[in-house]
Amino acid sequence: MAQKPSIPKGTRDFSPAEMTNRNYIFDTIKSIFRLYGFQPIETPAMENLSTLMGKYGEEGDKLLFKILDSGEFLNNIESGSRGLTPSEIKSILSIENGILDNIICVIQTGLKSKKDIKSIEKAYSELYFKKEFDHLKKFIFYRNSKDRKDRKDLISYFKNITAEKLKGYIKLSIKQSRVSNFSESLKLTHKISEKGLRYDLTVPFARYVVQYRNDISFPFKRYQIQPVWRADRPQKGRYREFYQCDVDIVGSDSLLNEMELVQIVDQVFSKLKINTIVKINNRKILAGIAEVIGEKERILDITVAIDKLDKIGLEKVNEELLEKGIPEDAVGKLQPILHLSGSVSEKLAQLETVIGHSEIGSNGISEVRTLFAYLDTLSLTTEVELDLTLARGLNYYTGAIFEVKAKDASMGSICGGGRYDDLTGIFGMPGVSGVGISFGADRIYDVLTQLQLFPSATVDSTMLMFVNFGPAEEAFCLPVLASVRKAGINAEIFPDKSKMAKQMTWANNKKIPFVAIVGENEMLQGKINLKNMLSGEQQLVDPEELIKILSE
Amino acid sequence: MAQKPSIPKGTRDFSPAEMTNRNYIFDTIKSIFRLYGFQPIETPAMENLSTLMGKYGEEGDKLLFKILDSGEFLNNIESGSRGLTPSEIKSILSIENGILDNIICVIQTGLKSKKDIKSIEKAYSELYFKKEFDHLKKFIFYRNSKDRKDRKDLISYFKNITAEKLKGYIKLSIKQSRVSNFSESLKLTHKISEKGLRYDLTVPFARYVVQYRNDISFPFKRYQIQPVWRADRPQKGRYREFYQCDVDIVGSDSLLNEMELVQIVDQVFSKLKINTIVKINNRKILAGIAEVIGEKERILDITVAIDKLDKIGLEKVNEELLEKGIPEDAVGKLQPILHLSGSVSEKLAQLETVIGHSEIGSNGISEVRTLFAYLDTLSLTTEVELDLTLARGLNYYTGAIFEVKAKDASMGSICGGGRYDDLTGIFGMPGVSGVGISFGADRIYDVLTQLQLFPSATVDSTMLMFVNFGPAEEAFCLPVLASVRKAGINAEIFPDKSKMAKQMTWANNKKIPFVAIVGENEMLQGKINLKNMLSGEQQLVDPEELIKILSE
Repeated sequence: MAQKPSIPKGTRDFSPAEMTNRNYIFDTIKSIFRLYGFQPIETPAMENLSTLMGKYGEEGDKLLFKILDSGEFLNNIESGSRGLTPSEIKSILSIENGILDNIICVIQTGLKSKKDIKSIEKAYSELYFKKEFDHLKKFIFYRNSKDRKDRKDLISYFKNITAEKLKGYIKLSIKQSRVSNFSESLKLTHKISEKGLRYDLTVPFARYVVQYRNDISFPFKRYQIQPVWRADRPQKGRYREFYQCDVDIVGSDSLLNEMELVQIVDQVFSKLKINTIVKINNRKILAGIAEVIGEKERILDITVAIDKLDKIGLEKVNEELLEKGIPEDAVGKLQPILHLSGSVSEKLAQLETVIGHSEIGSNGISEVRTLFAYLDTLSLTTEVELDLTLARGLNYYTGAIFEVKAKDASMGSICGGGRYDDLTGIFGMPGVSGVGISFGADRIYDVLTQLQLFPSATVDSTMLMFVNFGPAEEAFCLPVLASVRKAGINAEIFPDKSKMAKQMTWANNKKIPFVAIVGENEMLQGKINLKNMLSGEQQLVDPEELIKILSE
Repeated sequence: MAQKPSIPKGTRDFSPAEMTNRNYIFDTIKSIFRLYGFQPIETPAMENLSTLMGKYGEEGDKLLFKILDSGEFLNNIESGSRGLTPSEIKSILSIENGILDNIICVIQTGLKSKKDIKSIEKAYSELYFKKEFDHLKKFIFYRNSKDRKDRKDLISYFKNITAEKLKGYIKLSIKQSRVSNFSESLKLTHKISEKGLRYDLTVPFARYVVQYRNDISFPFKRYQIQPVWRADRPQKGRYREFYQCDVDIVGSDSLLNEMELVQIVDQVFSKLKINTIVKINNRKILAGIAEVIGEKERILDITVAIDKLDKIGLEKVNEELLEKGIPEDAVGKLQPILHLSGSVSEKLAQLETVIGHSEIGSNGISEVRTLFAYLDTLSLTTEVELDLTLARGLNYYTGAIFEVKAKDASMGSICGGGRYDDLTGIFGMPGVSGVGISFGADRIYDVLTQLQLFPSATVDSTMLMFVNFGPAEEAFCLPVLASVRKAGINAEIFPDKSKMAKQMTWANNKKIPFVAIVGENEMLQGKINLKNMLSGEQQLVDPEELIKILSE
C-alpha cells in the first residue's frame, strides 16, 4: 500500500464539525461588520515580492513563503529579428534590480529539453567569441545606473538589439553565473522567485487602496477574512496557514470610527457570549511621556518596556529601561505614570498635570477623552479600560491602540488594533489615516471551546434523515423529503439500503437530531415514525406535522 | 513617488461590488448543498508535492505553483557528535530520491550569513582531503539502490556516522554540484521545493478521505469551496487563481446520489434564475460501444473524438477516428450510435439492440434507465437530456457523466461532473466509489452578468446612511442609528463632517438606498428627513416609522 498521505507541517484540514464552528465565528463577525456598513474585499493569495518584502522587518521577510517562477519572462518577449518594441523595452526596464540573476534561474527552471540546453550551449560559445560579452556588461551597467542619461542611452541601445540577441545576452549570463564564486551562487538561489504568499491582510489592503485609489470613495470601510501564510516554526497554536479577520476604515480622522470599532467588538463578543475587557491606549500619550521625560527618540524602547509591565512587573521594567540606556532621572519621571489610578477621567487628569504641556501628549489626552465620552453614551456589554501600559509592540500605530481579552478564559488577546496615520505611504500615497482591528479567529475558537460556548446545532446542520429500507419505502419517502426541503429544512435520505444500525450510527455521527423511520406499517398508514435522536422519543406523524415539528 | 503597486498576472482583487455578487452565487450554492445534507470541509492551500505530482498528467505537473523550501531539513537533524538516532535515520531514508540535490539547494537557500559560508568552505576542503568523498559516493549509491541488503547496509552505515559528519557530506555535495555539468544543474533547480499550491479540489479531497478514513462515517457527503492555483498562461476568462465549488459523495454506489446531484443542479440554477440543460451520459455505455466495435482498448481515443461531435461535426470525427488507427469497419459500426434519436427510452432501446450483449454496455444502459426513472418522479425546472456524445475528455469517470449549459447565454459548460470508482486508489485506498459535480463560479458570474440577473441589493448591503452635520446632530442621530441596527438593519453614519454633496455622492457610490438627513429643523421636531435615493422622494418620519419603512 502507498504511504498514508499527509499535509505540510503547520497546516490544517478542517472537518465538517470544525467548519461548522468556524463558520459560526466568521458568520457572526461578518454580520456585525455589515451592520456597521463595512463591505468585503478579497485580494489574491499571491502578491509580488516587491509588495511584500521590507514591510515586516528582516524576520518577517524570512517568514514569507516564496513561489518558484515558472519561466514566463522570456515568453513575453516576442522572438524575431526585428528590434524590440517600446513596450518590450518598458517591460525589461520595469523589472527590479537583480533581474539578471533572476533571469538566469528562470531559464534554468524553464528550459527542460535536451534541445534547449544544446542551443544555449551553442549560444554561449558563439556569443563569447564574438565578444558580445561587452554588450552584456553594458546592459548590466545601464540597468544599475541611476543616471537619467544612462537610462536614455539604454533605451536607444535596446532599439538596436533584436529579441534574439537579447535572449543571447541573457543566456550568456548563465555562463557567467557558473564562474562566479560560491557566495554569489548562494545569492543566486534567492532570485528564483518573484511572488510570495500574503503574510497578513494589512499590506495587501494598503496595496489595494493605493492601486484603486481613483475608484474608491473615501472614507473606505472594508472587511477582509482570508488565510495568510507564515513560514514560522510550527508549534501548538501557531500555524503556517491561518485566517485573519480585519476591519478597517481609511481616509477619515474622525474618532467616531474608533467608537464604532469598540461597538463592533462589543457586539461580536456579546453575540458569541464571551465576556471581554477592551483595553484602550493612545500612542500620542506614549509619545508625550517620552517627550516629557526627555527621551523623545527612545519612544520605542520605552513603550516596549511598558508593554511588559503586566508580565514582568514594575521592578523588571525599570531595570530594562536602565539597561537600554534611559537615564535614571528619566526613569524616575516615568514612575508616577506607571502608578496612575482611579477612573478614566481621574487618570486623564493626573496625566494632564504630567504631560499636559507636551503638544502631542495633550492631543493624545484629548483624543482619549473624546473617545471615552462617546463610549459613555453607549450601553456596552464589555468592560472598557484605559491602559497606559498597552503598546502592542507595534510601531506603526499613531493614535488609538486597542486590545481585547476574554475575561473567563486564559488566553492572550483575542482581538487588537489601532490607528495608523500612514499605512499607504509605503506604496507612495502618503497622508491617508486609517484605523482598524483584527479578530484572532483561532484564539476565539479556542476560547469558545474552553468555555463550551459553541451552539450544539446551527442553521447549517441537517435536521432530518430518512432511513432507507429499499425501493418501495424510498418511493414513499422521496416526495416527503422534497416537501421538507421545500420548507427550507436541511434533510437527507441515507443513499443505500444498509443495515438499520449502520444508518442510525451514521445519523448519530452527523449529529442529525431527527430520524424518519418509514417501514411497511407506516406506509400503510401514510405516516412517518419520527425519532428524536436526543431523547429517543418516537411519534407517528403525517407529512404536515413533520414539517411543523422540524420548523419549531 | 513609488511605482504604482500591482498584483501578479492572472490574479484578481475583488471589490466590494464584485464580492457582493460572488457571495450571492456562493451563498446560493451553499444553501442548496446544505439542504441536501452536504457538509463543508476545507483543506490547506499548500499540499505536499508528493500528493499533487503525477495526478494531472505531465502538462498538469508543469502548471503546479511550487513553493520554495525554507531550509528546515537540517534543523530536524540534531547537531552533535553522537551517531544518528533511529528516527533521524528514518527521516533521512523516507525522503524521496533526488534528496541530495534537494538538500544542496535547501542549504543554499537557507544559509545567509558570511560565517555560514565560511564554515562550509572550510568543511569542503577538510572533507575533500580526508577522502570522505568516498563516503558521500557510498551514500548516494545506497540511496539509489533498490536492493534490500544495500538499504540495510546503509542503515548500519548511518549508525556509525554523526550528525556533524552527515552535515559535512551534505555540504560536500554542494561542491560536487558545482563541478557537475550544465544539464545536471538544470535538474537541480527542480529540487528546491517540496510543497505546491493545490491545483484542484478533487485530489486534496481524495487525500483527505484516505487520511481520515478512520474518522469518517461513510457515505461521506462533503462540499468544498476554495481557490485553486494553476500556472496557466493568463488570458480572458482564464485565471491563475480561481474558486472551485465541488460537491461529492464517496462510499455509496446508489444511483440516488446521481439523482440528488441533478436535483441540486436544478435547484441552484432555479434559484439563480438561469435556464439550463443538463446533459447526462454514462461511461459504461461508451465502454460498451468500444467493446462492441472491437476496440475495447481504444475507448479513450473514441470518447475524445465523440466529445468533439458538437464542435467539429460527424465527418471530422470520423476522419479523426480513422487517423487514430481505428479500423474502417469499427468506425462504420459506430455510425448508428452517433445517429440515435427520439426520447430517452427510445434511444436506450436502440442502444440495447447494438450493445445490449456487452456486459458493461448493458450495465450502463440499466444505470441510465434507473437514473431517468428517478428523475421522472421529480418536477424539475431544468431540461435533462441523454447525450451519448458527452465524454468530458476526463478519463477517471467510470459511470454517470454530467454537464450543464446555460440555455440563454453563449458560454461553455457551467457545471459538470460524474462518477469515479477509484478516486482514492491513488493514495492506497482502493474500491471507494464516488460521484460529484463542480460548479464553475467564474462562468456562472459571467452568465449572470450577461443576462443581468444579479439582484440589485442583497442582505449584505447598507440600507441607510445618516448624513453628518457635526457634533450636535451626531448626538441626535447616534441613538437612532443604534436602534436601527438593533432591528437588524445594516446602517451607518458618515464619519466626518464633510460637505453635504460629498456625503451624498459617497452614499450613491455605495448604492445605499436611503439617506437620513437631520439638521436643526428636524432635531427640533424630533424627526428624521428620510430620502429615497432612487426616487428622490423625501419624507419626515419619527424613529419608529423609520425602522418600519426600512424593514419593508
